[in-house]
Amino acid sequence: MSRFFFIFMTFVISTVAYGQKPKDVKLSEPDKTGGKPIMQALADRHSDREFDSKELSVQDISDLLWAANGINRPDGRRTAPSALNKQDVDIYVLTKDGAYLYDASTHTLKGVAVGDHRGLISGRPSNTPSATPPVGLVLVSDLSKFGANVADRAFQMGALDAGIVSQNINLFCAGKGFSTVPRMSMDNDGLKKTLNLKESQIPMLNNPVGYPKK
Amino acid sequence: MSRFFFIFMTFVISTVAYGQKPKDVKLSEPDKTGGKPIMQALADRHSDREFDSKELSVQDISDLLWAANGINRPDGRRTAPSALNKQDVDIYVLTKDGAYLYDASTHTLKGVAVGDHRGLISGRPSNTPSATPPVGLVLVSDLSKFGANVADRAFQMGALDAGIVSQNINLFCAGKGFSTVPRMSMDNDGLKKTLNLKESQIPMLNNPVGYPKK
Repeated sequence: MSRFFFIFMTFVISTVAYGQKPKDVKLSEPDKTGGKPIMQALADRHSDREFDSKELSVQDISDLLWAANGINRPDGRRTAPSALNKQDVDIYVLTKDGAYLYDASTHTLKGVAVGDHRGLISGRPSNTPSATPPVGLVLVSDLSKFGANVADRAFQMGALDAGIVSQNINLFCAGKGFSTVPRMSMDNDGLKKTLNLKESQIPMLNNPVGYPKK
Repeated sequence: MSRFFFIFMTFVISTVAYGQKPKDVKLSEPDKTGGKPIMQALADRHSDREFDSKELSVQDISDLLWAANGINRPDGRRTAPSALNKQDVDIYVLTKDGAYLYDASTHTLKGVAVGDHRGLISGRPSNTPSATPPVGLVLVSDLSKFGANVADRAFQMGALDAGIVSQNINLFCAGKGFSTVPRMSMDNDGLKKTLNLKESQIPMLNNPVGYPKK
């Protein structure tokens, strides 16, 4: 009886979890002021691969995502320029609770997949707890946004644009006291499946983000 | 006689100009302080395609290049991270007087070619005077720096790294009151020839920089 119950419950849990999306999260208004002066942020820019276990607050995540690729003008243009203004870079956010897509137009995290998928960008098997960031940002360029006319240059455009978004994250972290590192290493196949990416959506880079390890 | 003199002088001038390099310029120490707070720089980040004719001072150029990809730590690491820390992105500087290579290790402009080569990145034939920037920065990635082991990912690495350097420039300009725009359009063949680039050196992006048009 208990064995059947176990099998039954496993079936129920699997059914619920499969394809289940976490709830959307409306982010608070980003604080568009403060942080170190730009020259000081550049002076302090460096890569950190270890993180404190302290979680980022919803306000931290709001500020971080707006800095990375948020809307900074009434016409919908962004903190990050993009080739032909195609805004090809999407940011997927991995937390202990789920995977989300940052929707800049509503400043909302859209639920994509439940569960902790941060291992998809953690890299090495010798992973220590301090190498697990509270938040992992995956920068995905949708090359289909550039259209057929520039198809031969679309990959270059997508990679340049992702680098631009990453440096927004790097300088936000340097200027506001967070740790991060840009990395190309990640489980691309796992990310494509988990994040339900189209063929034209290329994971270009990821930035784990957390408070500095004490 | 005057005709022969003209031909003779044309020959002399051509011979002198061909392959001639401008003198190296030792830049003043960059001012690593000040500018708007990082969040304000992100809020003000935008692309400008027109420029005032006012020249940048040597101090402006010093600050700009250090911000773009200068050394910010005793171990030689940079304001811009790079894949595998290969520091693959070189910045070529085009002014009315010549083309130069920014040498971060000595914070010097190394003379590359005499003459005004800013037209190589100016793009459209309908170019107006206000579209000619005092300074053009060309971001060139040397893919050979990544080595054979990652040759299949070298182009992606080089483009990401160039995007990162470009966003340093974009945010420096936003934070210090200059105008710029990242552009992929440029005369790649002309640049390769004028800058004497190796096969592995790819012009990825350029950023004209000037004071805002009044």
